[in-house]
Amino acid sequence: MEKRIDTAVGKLQEFEAIFNPQSVAVIGASDDPAKLGYHVIKSLVAGGFPGKIFPINPGRKEVFGLPAFSSPDLVPEKIDLAIVVLPAKLVPEVLEACGRKGIKGAVLIAGGFKEIEDKSGEKMQEEITQLANRAGIKVIGPNTFGMFNLHRKLNASFTPDFSQMEPGSISLVSQSGGIAHLLGFLAQRERVGLGKVFGLGNRCNIDFAEMLECLVEDPETKVIAMYIEGLDNPRRLIDTAQKVRGRKPLLVYKAGRSQASDKASKSHTGSLAGNYEIYQGAFRQAGMLTVESSEELLDAAKILALCPLPRGNRVAVLSGQAGLAMVASDFCEREGLVLAPFSEDTQRQINELLPPLTIRTNPVDLGPAWYNAEAMRGIIQLVLSDENIDAMIFCIVYASINRHLTKMLIELFETESKKKPILTCISAPEGIWDDDIRSLQNVGVVNFSTPERAAQALGNLIRYSKISGE
Amino acid sequence: MEKRIDTAVGKLQEFEAIFNPQSVAVIGASDDPAKLGYHVIKSLVAGGFPGKIFPINPGRKEVFGLPAFSSPDLVPEKIDLAIVVLPAKLVPEVLEACGRKGIKGAVLIAGGFKEIEDKSGEKMQEEITQLANRAGIKVIGPNTFGMFNLHRKLNASFTPDFSQMEPGSISLVSQSGGIAHLLGFLAQRERVGLGKVFGLGNRCNIDFAEMLECLVEDPETKVIAMYIEGLDNPRRLIDTAQKVRGRKPLLVYKAGRSQASDKASKSHTGSLAGNYEIYQGAFRQAGMLTVESSEELLDAAKILALCPLPRGNRVAVLSGQAGLAMVASDFCEREGLVLAPFSEDTQRQINELLPPLTIRTNPVDLGPAWYNAEAMRGIIQLVLSDENIDAMIFCIVYASINRHLTKMLIELFETESKKKPILTCISAPEGIWDDDIRSLQNVGVVNFSTPERAAQALGNLIRYSKISGE
Repeated sequence: MEKRIDTAVGKLQEFEAIFNPQSVAVIGASDDPAKLGYHVIKSLVAGGFPGKIFPINPGRKEVFGLPAFSSPDLVPEKIDLAIVVLPAKLVPEVLEACGRKGIKGAVLIAGGFKEIEDKSGEKMQEEITQLANRAGIKVIGPNTFGMFNLHRKLNASFTPDFSQMEPGSISLVSQSGGIAHLLGFLAQRERVGLGKVFGLGNRCNIDFAEMLECLVEDPETKVIAMYIEGLDNPRRLIDTAQKVRGRKPLLVYKAGRSQASDKASKSHTGSLAGNYEIYQGAFRQAGMLTVESSEELLDAAKILALCPLPRGNRVAVLSGQAGLAMVASDFCEREGLVLAPFSEDTQRQINELLPPLTIRTNPVDLGPAWYNAEAMRGIIQLVLSDENIDAMIFCIVYASINRHLTKMLIELFETESKKKPILTCISAPEGIWDDDIRSLQNVGVVNFSTPERAAQALGNLIRYSKISGE
Repeated sequence: MEKRIDTAVGKLQEFEAIFNPQSVAVIGASDDPAKLGYHVIKSLVAGGFPGKIFPINPGRKEVFGLPAFSSPDLVPEKIDLAIVVLPAKLVPEVLEACGRKGIKGAVLIAGGFKEIEDKSGEKMQEEITQLANRAGIKVIGPNTFGMFNLHRKLNASFTPDFSQMEPGSISLVSQSGGIAHLLGFLAQRERVGLGKVFGLGNRCNIDFAEMLECLVEDPETKVIAMYIEGLDNPRRLIDTAQKVRGRKPLLVYKAGRSQASDKASKSHTGSLAGNYEIYQGAFRQAGMLTVESSEELLDAAKILALCPLPRGNRVAVLSGQAGLAMVASDFCEREGLVLAPFSEDTQRQINELLPPLTIRTNPVDLGPAWYNAEAMRGIIQLVLSDENIDAMIFCIVYASINRHLTKMLIELFETESKKKPILTCISAPEGIWDDDIRSLQNVGVVNFSTPERAAQALGNLIRYSKISGE
């Protein structure tokens, strides 16, 4: 069976060949764009992987301009990681060769194992698991899109485009390669920074629990997000989560609540999804943050990665337009947040800055301050300094006359966003304010496309601050 | 009191000056970008309004390069619509002048009426309502951002950017200008076509009920979407909705479920939001489709505008990656949809096209057909022709090796999308497939950024098909 070392450093070290290989062999590398082996070698090369790359292809002298070898055994240098893009039936032989070569990590992109109807697939998976364990090879997959680590320019997947993403501090562990792609592309479009992304697929000797043990020790990972369909050993994940509870945010999106998808799970990754409600309850008890959609997973990961933790659940809503304040307030209340009254002192000073044309208590309608950046700045500062307030949601829509406003916000929030979480819903036509929103995010102010999503994300931040503060 | 004609043609005719004016006066037009009057005249001119534009400003001979007049009385031609961008205290006098001039529509952007703390505001609003009713002037506002009708290049708002949007068949009636902006910008980013958008603000003589009576007769409007905070006369809206039930989809997003936002509503547009649950129940009974967020409002409007109505709630989920199929299935079940078994004949033929490496019953994992466009085409056609299936959700994520797939989908769906609703979640990095997704939308295939949003939108489409089929 797989050897387990329970010290922190040991766990990270066990994953060194996967997280941070110095050399990678692509077994099944190809120059033919109709083959996955082409896209894998392209991902590594075009992604700028700084280590050595060895294409393995018995029929070729060269692949993608690099000297090719017919077997990993014949590579004259050390290899840390092997990416295997071959049909299932060739995998056992390849793993044996990897073992002989001393390779410590493998990404098995091949399908045709536990997930297929034919029983031979399950048997084959048992065989390769035993082979890998005997050789001390950590395996991502089989039946996976691969993985990538943007901090090391390591794109060990069949999707070269992942290399274009900005690295961030969110690590994602996904049972499904499809969902990893979906979340990756959404993250790219919404400027959410992912760091390490893993498609676990059929999980032959790396499962969620082990990824968690490892990522909780990883200094480059601030938030751990998981997409889970089914678990072979739920107890192990829940015990691990309980053990590391509060050390880092652990977000879980669990599919398989419907009969149809439970059935699909069996077929997809060889695991029954199991009773959804029981899982959810157990996850929550273990300090995992459960979310209900892909969007919520990314929104929560984004805020947990970028914002400081609030001391409590008292939120101020400030909005340039009252409608957005109302919607944000509705969703704050739904999330269990409190729109607390300001302190007397704060309220008195706000009343001096804002004319009585609008609502000046929490939620504040800043409408009349559109033409008075100083008043707006003053109100924001007052509210952020108010000891009755733990977090702020700030909403504003573009209206051409208020175009200059974001500049003031960037300056102001730069100094304020380290103290209390500031979430924004700054909404504008395509191409306007996009750069400013990115600048705000760089100073730790997180933007959402709607007030509802901002309020929901704040709910998750506050839920985690309770878990971490226990 | 305002004269009401209850025939359809009459109602549209009453709104002719607002929907389709031949000439517009901007009262308070300005050349100073620090003033709203500048942005309003810019909206009209830069938006390419094809009718006549008359700036009214007593201190100027010319505004925005157009000859200016000191009062609407002095304009030597007929004026259909007046946009008033002046302080509240000047509005009564201006409305009197508009009445003398025979102007039949007004957009009162000015605030300072029923929404302010001071009782004088409410009195002022009563005064202008009486003035407008006496003169037979239909008024959008006061306290509004304005309105726009993209079918007539009429941008009667202070946000010139709205003119950049592609016209569509969704009309939006929003109590809040902020929410109208938020939804407008989201619609632009997600390629959802809005047609007419109105900010009702304080509603002096045009309320939701009247907009509904009118838009239900409007041939350019296919879907009516409303954002409501509070209603002065809820009974009238509910009765009207009941009367026009099933003629066009009527979507309602109601804010004010929280105490904080209920309080804000009073201050914002002079109406208490009222008991949220009572409203929701009454709306649903009257055949209105209630939604729970800005995103859901747009997603539902988009699908209702573009897709045919399904005969029932039996949905097929086809996905290039099993994870997306699972998530879509989960949300379909949550929405009350049924993942029905295929007919024996369909199932048999699918089994011939797809190898036994994956789930071939509903939801179908098309994974093995990635390399076989003919198999994928065949399966899609079989499922769409199956009498057991009323609608399809098709998911696929980009993976560079499947880049060519969208071309086949566009050709195929072009002929198929008129028969049954086809929703997609086609996900790719920025700049890849964006044009293809737009082409698909042009043939009536509606794309969503996540499988969850697609399933939720299909739930709303099916809910409406029940209302319209009663």
